[in-house]
Amino acid sequence: MTSVAFIERLPAGGHDLGIETDRDMMARHLADATRKPGPVPSLVARPKTTEGVSAFLKACHDAGQPVAVQGGLTGLSGGARPLEGEVVLSLERMRSLGPVDAVSATIVVEAGARLQTVQEAAESAGLCFGVDIGARGSATIGGMIATNAGGIRVLRHDMMRAQILGLEAVLADGTVLSSLRGLMKDNSGPNLNQLFIGGEGLFGVVTRACLRLSAKPAAERNALCAVPSVDSALVLLQRLRSALGPQLTAFEGIFAPVYEGISAMRRGAIPLPAGSPLYVIAEMQIFGAQAGDDVFETVLIQAYEDGLCSDIVVSRSGREFAAIWDVREGCTEFTFSLGRLTGHDISVPLRSIPAFMAEAETLLAGLDPEAGAYVFGHLGDGNLHYVVRTGRREAVSPEIYRLAARLGGSVTAEHGVGLDKKDYLSLVRSPAELATIRMLKAALDPKAILNRGRVL
Amino acid sequence: MTSVAFIERLPAGGHDLGIETDRDMMARHLADATRKPGPVPSLVARPKTTEGVSAFLKACHDAGQPVAVQGGLTGLSGGARPLEGEVVLSLERMRSLGPVDAVSATIVVEAGARLQTVQEAAESAGLCFGVDIGARGSATIGGMIATNAGGIRVLRHDMMRAQILGLEAVLADGTVLSSLRGLMKDNSGPNLNQLFIGGEGLFGVVTRACLRLSAKPAAERNALCAVPSVDSALVLLQRLRSALGPQLTAFEGIFAPVYEGISAMRRGAIPLPAGSPLYVIAEMQIFGAQAGDDVFETVLIQAYEDGLCSDIVVSRSGREFAAIWDVREGCTEFTFSLGRLTGHDISVPLRSIPAFMAEAETLLAGLDPEAGAYVFGHLGDGNLHYVVRTGRREAVSPEIYRLAARLGGSVTAEHGVGLDKKDYLSLVRSPAELATIRMLKAALDPKAILNRGRVL
Repeated sequence: MTSVAFIERLPAGGHDLGIETDRDMMARHLADATRKPGPVPSLVARPKTTEGVSAFLKACHDAGQPVAVQGGLTGLSGGARPLEGEVVLSLERMRSLGPVDAVSATIVVEAGARLQTVQEAAESAGLCFGVDIGARGSATIGGMIATNAGGIRVLRHDMMRAQILGLEAVLADGTVLSSLRGLMKDNSGPNLNQLFIGGEGLFGVVTRACLRLSAKPAAERNALCAVPSVDSALVLLQRLRSALGPQLTAFEGIFAPVYEGISAMRRGAIPLPAGSPLYVIAEMQIFGAQAGDDVFETVLIQAYEDGLCSDIVVSRSGREFAAIWDVREGCTEFTFSLGRLTGHDISVPLRSIPAFMAEAETLLAGLDPEAGAYVFGHLGDGNLHYVVRTGRREAVSPEIYRLAARLGGSVTAEHGVGLDKKDYLSLVRSPAELATIRMLKAALDPKAILNRGRVL
Repeated sequence: MTSVAFIERLPAGGHDLGIETDRDMMARHLADATRKPGPVPSLVARPKTTEGVSAFLKACHDAGQPVAVQGGLTGLSGGARPLEGEVVLSLERMRSLGPVDAVSATIVVEAGARLQTVQEAAESAGLCFGVDIGARGSATIGGMIATNAGGIRVLRHDMMRAQILGLEAVLADGTVLSSLRGLMKDNSGPNLNQLFIGGEGLFGVVTRACLRLSAKPAAERNALCAVPSVDSALVLLQRLRSALGPQLTAFEGIFAPVYEGISAMRRGAIPLPAGSPLYVIAEMQIFGAQAGDDVFETVLIQAYEDGLCSDIVVSRSGREFAAIWDVREGCTEFTFSLGRLTGHDISVPLRSIPAFMAEAETLLAGLDPEAGAYVFGHLGDGNLHYVVRTGRREAVSPEIYRLAARLGGSVTAEHGVGLDKKDYLSLVRSPAELATIRMLKAALDPKAILNRGRVL
């Protein structure tokens, strides 16, 4: 179908669909954060309302017109990159936020609302939103729901799924499913919202969500620890988890090559000198007038005495707190500065991290003696960003993923599958699981117009 | 099909299906905790393995034989009560527990494992399991997953859904979906496990689960507070939530008629005298060597000074802690002692609880001036057990549910729909939602053999 014919079929009455066909205007809809542009779509629709999304999808469904769904375009698996013949549905003009309900600790927002906007609304009501990722200024709530975003505070708040108390989504044929009551407890039949969380847009388009907000801590502290090995780090994690319970909010790892890179990039102006094989950033939250920070120091000092850490700096001011997190932000900055690298967003059971690191090093040496591994990530939840510099990318990546799968892990811990991780899905999902996903897709989107060719 | 003919068709080879056809032996498979027995089924199958469940379901699927799925039979919505013509599939012989993985803080258990067994396994490894309900000695993990059980610590740990890091389930045709890696982060395609959590057995039978375990607190404290109104209770909740963050684990409410009943039943031997319109039990967990309990007292004393509570007792020993929780356990004991009552497991947004209580009182007085309301429950998450003594049950129940729905609430907060709440589902689920549930049911269980007639 030509774009002109399709546009003529679109419902005119009442819906501001924000149709855009100018090629220059569409330039920013060609790629997500992977920067690999797809073809220019025949049009981009940017509806203002759920009814507009519904009317647009119904027209696409009737015409059998495939649709690429876009949020903030911060994805790292190519899920939002348009394919040949697709039109684009962008939620970017649906970004309003309802008022914070301070009693229930919830807020209803449109799918195009930016994460940072939601975080700021929560904070202004004395609450906080549990998920935080580096792309907070651009990532949209809808995209974060569709990809079940994770980030650095999964230890405390779990992933995006756990923040969703209600959802509104539109099926491929325009049917609107609205469940925005936002109850903490509601077992009135199967929870359909779960289909759309982490569903990568296969089953429907999220238009609004009721989000859980949490108590805002009175204070936060963090520490940067030099640790001699992954084994030591895991013991330290267990001790902190046991001593701090849900007040332990983050446990991030940075392996030597990345830490050394950041140290050089910052000209040594970082809280601990390079030289240790692994660095850990731990963070805790303090509520009320608790002396919980003493526990933090007690555990860390004991860990030092027991040789679990060779050096520690604990923040004592907002400036020091920021300086420690700045090291973590440096991971992406440094690895991006190295040019074309190959990232692997894997997770393995915590107990298998030492085996993963050792075996990955061996296989990398075998496949490409010139290769370098730059590893950092969310150590506390088993999620490592295993970034490799290699000229033999095609040989290396499948082996890294195969290793993660063999150790009981995942080939995409938080980035999703999209277009770019499809080849590895069968390493971790059985034929029965893949067949079931296809069955659900056929039931909910019989013409397969939504994000066709993604995931499966 | 006669039972004999069906049994002859069952696969013999290798599977211990534990087929039971003796009428006396089947007596305990006729009802859940609602005590309303269904007809005697032609057989009860009690397989020992997932393969056995699969073989049995495949035979049922091929024969078009409907199946009632049973766990610990502690449900309160009749979901496990057999219907005419059904056979029963009980998971009671699949109750083994794997070892606790202390590093990952997980455990893999079979669906028939009892909650209390899981709690004890976690504790013996220095960890804890987040969901607790009164029926812990009988309720099985599989049943709790299928009904997304809640209980008293939802404020801290959320419901059963949040404890599930992996699942194995068998579809109606015997297909086994196994996803037991137990990763904290895994976005390798849509999460099929979510279908079976709170799915009430419509889409498949849970056979095993990988459960999340949490840090075991160093200490727990609770307090019993007499509060003058629901509004005061909600302010107290906000203050405790803000001061304690995730250390606030429970916030239970007991309204005067129930509290007075417990007081009489215990001959006054309870921590606070009756006389207040509402009582609240708050609980907090303390980790490490924190002085968090001081915050607890500080907030409560300030609440007393501000008139939010008229009396408070804070536990200072294990004995006092148990005495306060004993009051809460008395709620069920007392209301059961009143004879045939009508329970309503509703939830409303927190801010609407005062309106719900006031309007329910008015409508009850209008429908049955003789009626008495006995109300208690999980005030902190908006979930009230609104129990009514009335001779006009048929007139009263629909109005209570209608009111909850009108105030943006749920007609079944944690008990599920089963057979007994079906009539009220359309008050809270739209025709589009119900049609989508039917579509999923048709895709996953085309002959509708699993828990036919439940929920929908």
